[in-house]
Amino acid sequence: MAVLEYDGTCYFGFQIQPGVKTIEGELVKAISTLLRENVEISYAGRTDAGVHATHQVINFKVDKDLNLYEFKWRLNSILPEDIVVKEISRVDSVFDARKSAKWREYSYLVVNGNYQSVFLKRYSILVVKDLDLRLMRKAAKMLVGEKDFKSFCSSESKDGNTVRKIRSFTVDKLKDNLLVFKVVANSFLQHMVRIMVGTILEIGIGKRDLTSLKTALNGKDRKLAGKTAPAKGLFLTNVVY
Amino acid sequence: MAVLEYDGTCYFGFQIQPGVKTIEGELVKAISTLLRENVEISYAGRTDAGVHATHQVINFKVDKDLNLYEFKWRLNSILPEDIVVKEISRVDSVFDARKSAKWREYSYLVVNGNYQSVFLKRYSILVVKDLDLRLMRKAAKMLVGEKDFKSFCSSESKDGNTVRKIRSFTVDKLKDNLLVFKVVANSFLQHMVRIMVGTILEIGIGKRDLTSLKTALNGKDRKLAGKTAPAKGLFLTNVVY
Repeated sequence: MAVLEYDGTCYFGFQIQPGVKTIEGELVKAISTLLRENVEISYAGRTDAGVHATHQVINFKVDKDLNLYEFKWRLNSILPEDIVVKEISRVDSVFDARKSAKWREYSYLVVNGNYQSVFLKRYSILVVKDLDLRLMRKAAKMLVGEKDFKSFCSSESKDGNTVRKIRSFTVDKLKDNLLVFKVVANSFLQHMVRIMVGTILEIGIGKRDLTSLKTALNGKDRKLAGKTAPAKGLFLTNVVY
Repeated sequence: MAVLEYDGTCYFGFQIQPGVKTIEGELVKAISTLLRENVEISYAGRTDAGVHATHQVINFKVDKDLNLYEFKWRLNSILPEDIVVKEISRVDSVFDARKSAKWREYSYLVVNGNYQSVFLKRYSILVVKDLDLRLMRKAAKMLVGEKDFKSFCSSESKDGNTVRKIRSFTVDKLKDNLLVFKVVANSFLQHMVRIMVGTILEIGIGKRDLTSLKTALNGKDRKLAGKTAPAKGLFLTNVVY
């Protein structure tokens, strides 16, 4: 099992795809090179193109007896600059990074001010209009629980069952102009976090009200929810097993 | 007067120089373009190549009657991606960003762990060996006061008077693996912060002791201090008037 961090800016998402640069593609290439065998990996979160991670979890089977400390250093030395292995450890053979995950946490960064920090522009979006934090917190709370999130799922998704269980959804000020949305759920539908954040931001600037959120939840129609917030503000920040 | 933030990674420092990309060069070009006259600027801190700023202060004289809010937006729209104007305001004509500054604060970021975060690698250095925080704090404290910092000044510097007054020098854990060195002084000699941080880090890993720091201070010889820490970990973070 390995815990990864990556800057998703230059990748076509996590999942391997022919002809484009993906996080999984780079990992499989690097691990297979070091082990001199073809490796398949399982992973906790299928992050979209442009989405980052401070805590993605993967696992893969190795028959060799590895020195893990050394393996991690060698892996980091051949991985691209924007992917790093933070930890690596042995796990039971039944462990599966995707299937064994109980909770996943995503965070979304929003700069609320009249300029975009040069250090955060790849990792957050800028909202110039005043945001009503109290109202956004109410909205976030309304989404907590086991619900059908069909309205908050990309219309192109093939997910059949759109019921998910959100354990917590908070909005906090990290400092003056920096807000962080944090949401924990058993799993997420395609674009779910970004559609929820986009909808809550529309509530925060007064473009829609809390009733419209209820309508969206009940209506089970993507058109009833807000815009999908840009990928660059989103991070996979934890996975609980 | 304007307050700026910039990512210094791709610049040959603040000060304008012919033939290379500098922060001052970009600012003078952008401001002069908008004002349609040649502008000269004064600035609080002459940051070196690769050094960043979250709070650099500049000023320049304008004869026109500007709408400052609009001017800031126009300026930010033509400045490069890695420079942003945070605030802009009218000041008394005797104000000079450099001469009027009472205190300057620089911060230095160090990741102390066994991997370098992909999000911090342009903005910090990685120290893998264990750092003794208590000892580094003692060292930092020894540098506080009005002293001759000749040993902590680039040997190529032309600064005649090498006496400076350090008001505070702290070392803190921002989180698990992230340390921040913060130093406030009336002004700084060339490479002074980086040489001080480099020397304190050598104390932190046990390569030198506190006595050697005293020897360096008294000896007034660059060779007695430690290595110059890399530019990328350094930020100009405040200027007090």
